[in-house]
Amino acid sequence: MLDKTLIDKFIQVVGPRYGLEAGDDQAPFLSEWRDKYVGKTDLVLLPGSTQEVAALVKIANETGTGIVPQGGNTGLVGGQLPDQSGSQILLSLKRLNKKRLISRLSNSMVVEAGVTLHEAQSYADAHDRLFPLSLASEGSCQIGGNISTNAGGIQVLKYGMMRDLVLGLEVVLPSGEIWDGLSDLRKDNTGYDLKSLFMGAEGTLGIVTAASLKLFPLPVERRVAFVGCESLEAVGAFFEHASARAGGALCAFEILCARGLEFSLDFMKGQTPSFKAPLETRWPWYGLIELEAYQEGWAGPLLEGLLESALEQGLIGDGVVATSEAQRLALWALRESLSGAQKPQGGSIKHD
Amino acid sequence: MLDKTLIDKFIQVVGPRYGLEAGDDQAPFLSEWRDKYVGKTDLVLLPGSTQEVAALVKIANETGTGIVPQGGNTGLVGGQLPDQSGSQILLSLKRLNKKRLISRLSNSMVVEAGVTLHEAQSYADAHDRLFPLSLASEGSCQIGGNISTNAGGIQVLKYGMMRDLVLGLEVVLPSGEIWDGLSDLRKDNTGYDLKSLFMGAEGTLGIVTAASLKLFPLPVERRVAFVGCESLEAVGAFFEHASARAGGALCAFEILCARGLEFSLDFMKGQTPSFKAPLETRWPWYGLIELEAYQEGWAGPLLEGLLESALEQGLIGDGVVATSEAQRLALWALRESLSGAQKPQGGSIKHD
Repeated sequence: MLDKTLIDKFIQVVGPRYGLEAGDDQAPFLSEWRDKYVGKTDLVLLPGSTQEVAALVKIANETGTGIVPQGGNTGLVGGQLPDQSGSQILLSLKRLNKKRLISRLSNSMVVEAGVTLHEAQSYADAHDRLFPLSLASEGSCQIGGNISTNAGGIQVLKYGMMRDLVLGLEVVLPSGEIWDGLSDLRKDNTGYDLKSLFMGAEGTLGIVTAASLKLFPLPVERRVAFVGCESLEAVGAFFEHASARAGGALCAFEILCARGLEFSLDFMKGQTPSFKAPLETRWPWYGLIELEAYQEGWAGPLLEGLLESALEQGLIGDGVVATSEAQRLALWALRESLSGAQKPQGGSIKHD
Repeated sequence: MLDKTLIDKFIQVVGPRYGLEAGDDQAPFLSEWRDKYVGKTDLVLLPGSTQEVAALVKIANETGTGIVPQGGNTGLVGGQLPDQSGSQILLSLKRLNKKRLISRLSNSMVVEAGVTLHEAQSYADAHDRLFPLSLASEGSCQIGGNISTNAGGIQVLKYGMMRDLVLGLEVVLPSGEIWDGLSDLRKDNTGYDLKSLFMGAEGTLGIVTAASLKLFPLPVERRVAFVGCESLEAVGAFFEHASARAGGALCAFEILCARGLEFSLDFMKGQTPSFKAPLETRWPWYGLIELEAYQEGWAGPLLEGLLESALEQGLIGDGVVATSEAQRLALWALRESLSGAQKPQGGSIKHD
């Protein structure tokens, strides 16, 4: 239990509207969507600026109060929830949602921790650039959480993990000091790499309040193929072949087993009865491969050539290239429906 | 001055052949090639394994002996040299030169700290893969030094700094313990990112003994162009235009001012009297741009298209695309000769 005087001291920083005590509507912050974990707290705080976060952390530090920082509350392992004591404050970063700046020349943008991944992607897209991190919960998860958990997603192969996409950070340290490491310099070899310590640290070393992120050129086309293979080794050999031949054009490669594809097909047919399996024959293993290109008309022939040579070499048994955007999305849907249970915004298969 | 008993204790670890005392041939380890810095030491040690490095560091730690780790001794700021007291031991990593393993499937290799950058590149190349770090001293500088100084080079734009190319490290900690962090996993989000702390730390937090490095597909062609611009802003606008249109194909972009080009031309004409300026007209600023592609015949048209549209938009005043490998190297020589003074293996302009 938190002392009422202490609660008031915290609330004074953010204003009464942004401090939720017992009896207020704390529920959205205290359970994850499967209801597998439920947290308890005497106080949910919603600071509106880095300065307010710093002031809250300073008080917590001085009074030995536990803090649980929370982003989009999409985590599935309970890390964003306070324990049952009620004495840990929950500090939601959702109001830190400013997109501070974007530069097409330095290919970078600075956004605050509470900006959702989808908003960050859209911000980049509106400025003719790609922010490549992409994962199932992108509509709800937030940049601060992506950084603190070092999120991965479907384009790690080409663009790396979240850690690889960060140029600089602004962090509130456990003392309540603000560390301004918002560099946007790609060729930065000054001193120790302190920012990396905070990435993947789940908030244990500080609270990320803003980040300078790498942007990339927008590809002009993406082409996807689905292949069937005799064995897992063959899928691996196909991947090796594809990565050597397609080079930087290879942006995603996913492996599915026969049973996984069956689950997906059952689910997809439940949604759309006319949904068809991409390959007529059944294979023990499948690969989904996507290429992207910066010139119209490049990715298709490259992908077709890849499949041809892989067939000749016996790496794959069969393969199909999506020839329309609808087909491309249908192939991805097979892969995505396997992680659909993790997709908060999906809704339809919630509580499976 | 180091105590003779202590010296003997250190030498016992590496064997008498690999401990160089005063009077032995210490000179190659104690000056950098311009003779701007000269160090002094009672003992140069050349351990032959990670275990020997660990044993040496343990003794140094227990006896409070200063250690200066040294890679290829190509640094120009004296960081690889002991001070004038003579009491700091110099620990050369050059005998740790094993290439431990390479995997085309995981696109990674593990090499020891004393492998030269050029050897590392060749090792990758022999296995049909690219290790992209490239800099003037690559014939002499070593992977351990590249990591400890977080080296950059000419392909940072596409592939990042050395820090971005490391998947895992093996490090001898100040205690003499060996930290085995030689992961080759790209999608690794377990725990704190400890490896990043050692990169760019110049050996102050530990001695890097081996590294797991990222490999990339080998591009099948590279095309380079040289452009003249009215202003620095125009070069910037051309870069922005090029990076948006060429996407991942853009692998290098260098800016030269008029005076820089003059220096280069003078130097090149001194070497090869028939050497010609790439553009007939003189411009205040120049850009050198290189594209790489994974399909024969892609980079040329893309680069020509880029130059055409940039000319139309007035971003550049003139431009030329190299049409042969000889022309490509000649254009690069203009850029490289500007950093030639830093190129230990170049020789010809040493002691300018």
